[in-house]
Amino acid sequence: MRACIERKREGGDLSPEEWTRIVAGLMDGRVDEAQFAALCMACVWRGMSFDEAFAMTRAMVESGDQLSFDRQEGVVVDKHSSGGVSDIVSLAAVPLAAACGARVAKLSGRALGHTGGTIDKLETIPGLRTALSTEEFAEQVRNTGCAIAAQSATIVPADKRIYALRDRTGTVPALGLISSSIVSKKIAGGAHAFVFDVKTGPAAFMQEPEKAKELGRWLLEIAARFGRRATAFVTDMSEPLGRCIGTGVEVVEAREMLQGNGDPRAVQLVTAIAAALVNECGFDEPEALVMRALSSGSGFEKFREMIAAQGGDVSAFENMQLGESIAVRARSGGYVSSIDVVRLGHAGRRLSTHDPLGGLRVDVRIGDYVETGTPLLHAYGRDRDHAAQFADAFTLSESKPAPVPLIYDVQINSVLYPQSGRAAAL
Amino acid sequence: MRACIERKREGGDLSPEEWTRIVAGLMDGRVDEAQFAALCMACVWRGMSFDEAFAMTRAMVESGDQLSFDRQEGVVVDKHSSGGVSDIVSLAAVPLAAACGARVAKLSGRALGHTGGTIDKLETIPGLRTALSTEEFAEQVRNTGCAIAAQSATIVPADKRIYALRDRTGTVPALGLISSSIVSKKIAGGAHAFVFDVKTGPAAFMQEPEKAKELGRWLLEIAARFGRRATAFVTDMSEPLGRCIGTGVEVVEAREMLQGNGDPRAVQLVTAIAAALVNECGFDEPEALVMRALSSGSGFEKFREMIAAQGGDVSAFENMQLGESIAVRARSGGYVSSIDVVRLGHAGRRLSTHDPLGGLRVDVRIGDYVETGTPLLHAYGRDRDHAAQFADAFTLSESKPAPVPLIYDVQINSVLYPQSGRAAAL
Repeated sequence: MRACIERKREGGDLSPEEWTRIVAGLMDGRVDEAQFAALCMACVWRGMSFDEAFAMTRAMVESGDQLSFDRQEGVVVDKHSSGGVSDIVSLAAVPLAAACGARVAKLSGRALGHTGGTIDKLETIPGLRTALSTEEFAEQVRNTGCAIAAQSATIVPADKRIYALRDRTGTVPALGLISSSIVSKKIAGGAHAFVFDVKTGPAAFMQEPEKAKELGRWLLEIAARFGRRATAFVTDMSEPLGRCIGTGVEVVEAREMLQGNGDPRAVQLVTAIAAALVNECGFDEPEALVMRALSSGSGFEKFREMIAAQGGDVSAFENMQLGESIAVRARSGGYVSSIDVVRLGHAGRRLSTHDPLGGLRVDVRIGDYVETGTPLLHAYGRDRDHAAQFADAFTLSESKPAPVPLIYDVQINSVLYPQSGRAAAL
Repeated sequence: MRACIERKREGGDLSPEEWTRIVAGLMDGRVDEAQFAALCMACVWRGMSFDEAFAMTRAMVESGDQLSFDRQEGVVVDKHSSGGVSDIVSLAAVPLAAACGARVAKLSGRALGHTGGTIDKLETIPGLRTALSTEEFAEQVRNTGCAIAAQSATIVPADKRIYALRDRTGTVPALGLISSSIVSKKIAGGAHAFVFDVKTGPAAFMQEPEKAKELGRWLLEIAARFGRRATAFVTDMSEPLGRCIGTGVEVVEAREMLQGNGDPRAVQLVTAIAAALVNECGFDEPEALVMRALSSGSGFEKFREMIAAQGGDVSAFENMQLGESIAVRARSGGYVSSIDVVRLGHAGRRLSTHDPLGGLRVDVRIGDYVETGTPLLHAYGRDRDHAAQFADAFTLSESKPAPVPLIYDVQINSVLYPQSGRAAAL
């Protein structure tokens, strides 16, 4: 192990066999955490090759259980987000794509830092279970076309261990390590294709768009080495994606979107990602399919169906509503030039901790002009009275800020299968 | 701690208070080894400032007991070697300098890797104790003028912990970390001035002379910040310093040198370092004093006196002799162009493990011309029959190799006390 650390320290690469032994060694105690941490720092310093990241990812996948789906029954797709605020994409895009015929097997995590977790959001629906067994998960994807399940502890246990270690040792920012963490969980989840949503902006893990694009390239490259087709989006996180921030309030927003009443910006990304999911499953004209599923209400129908399949009380879900609120108003006039999304994300988590319908609804977007007294946001839930301070999260200025794109970039890794068209690649 | 690791990772410096907390935290468990290892790798990557290395050294010194010597009674000097093969400098130079009036309080370590340890060598003298108490050590320096004691476990316990961690995590090669390890032990040993012997060459910790000089500058700078005068030598380790490699065999060689029968190359470095020790203690014309102590036998007298003071059997010491040997001969003729010193060092350790007078005596130096059958070395001790293989450690070539200097560089840090002459600096 020391020789491996020293080689990486001097800028060399480790072999696939070495990465396999190192990851397995960390799990069984032959490699101690101090050695692994030093190696991770050397990876931050010297970088990793795609070969190394692939080998590490494979070793991580092999640390635990692996699901699989029969490809003969059709392509199964999974989706991943690097973490956002008011990121309702999974809640809305998964049933929307399934309504178009895609088969979506989505493994999700919980809230992390200021970003929300799809599992936490879904669990606000009375009765709904996210701890599906492997069989239940596969069965539901087969019968309903989609499922959103919590990643079980037996899937890539190495990632949990390694991520915690990297987190406390300041060794998170290495593209190879980040990619291995993300892709290993998707590979072990068993889907045949993936859609990655890499957020960028001040509230994102990858703050710079160029770095987010680079991470997207890494995710596509590692996925390709596993023979998995993938699409990577780079999308904006300089303001909340939707309007609502919390858990249940985001479920309400996703439901309303599928009922035809969505925020235009959120709808734009949800439909784009739903179309990518549909595209990965081999359907032609995916955008048109998705827009039809949205306008016809079949996406909403699929959402209800998925919730019912997971044991959720559909009528309780349909009756979930934002309750009483207090408005937080602008103390002066001006253009909204920036929003402290990290702060609002933490606030949304706090407000929803003891009240599933606690949270925020943001009333303004960057570039909007507000007068003194215009509501900036509304706070919901039992702790809403503490929300007045969040007026500070909005910076108002005299001039209108330059618009920021919602979707910076979309890449697909089908170029890595030059011998085939899309159908063959699938 | 994570913020500190991240700052170093991005190329920033940590404050003295942070280094204090980190070293103390490692010792009391608040900082885990994985975090410390990641920080060390970031230090290898980004380097450390003198301020940081000084702060870390101070924190390490404070992790354990500290000796002190009354400066009113005269300057006490200590000596350190970065590790060599046939490195008999301490054995010979310490009594030689003491014979000139210097007060030498030498704390020594054990063998490490292929390099020998002065403590292991001294302990081959029947009865001799190196585990001196603080009081015994100080008393002997006062009465005899010199003592060579094993560094106790209570002196800089942080170094033992940190060095083991760095060793297994591939984070040894950072000048600031190396300096803190070396200087902390010297400071805690209580001497007022130091002589550092930084070896360079293929068998040295610092293989490149320029890097060895840089380490010398670091040692001098950190020592100066503690108000300690110091001299740093950079000396050759491309061949064994003396002739003998082992434990007791090196004691015999040191004794014979002080009896007037030394290898010229070894004598050159022993007298130069003895003179530096004498110089640090404020004596004029140190070289002349040392040459007189060597030729008059007063250095040998002091060696006997030191051994007796530490409980050693002086007549047994005087009767120690190399026993029967086998010669390892050149299999072809040519100039000795290189010697695998690491291999010979390991061989010397192995041969002396079960026999205090086991070891090697090297018969040739780089640049010597040998005929087929000329002895290259003699092997001693009960395991000597396995020595034939060591003929391979000598590379013979047709052309005479360029000579290599023995002493590459000598630096002193008195320039850091511009307000004073030598006496004032002391």
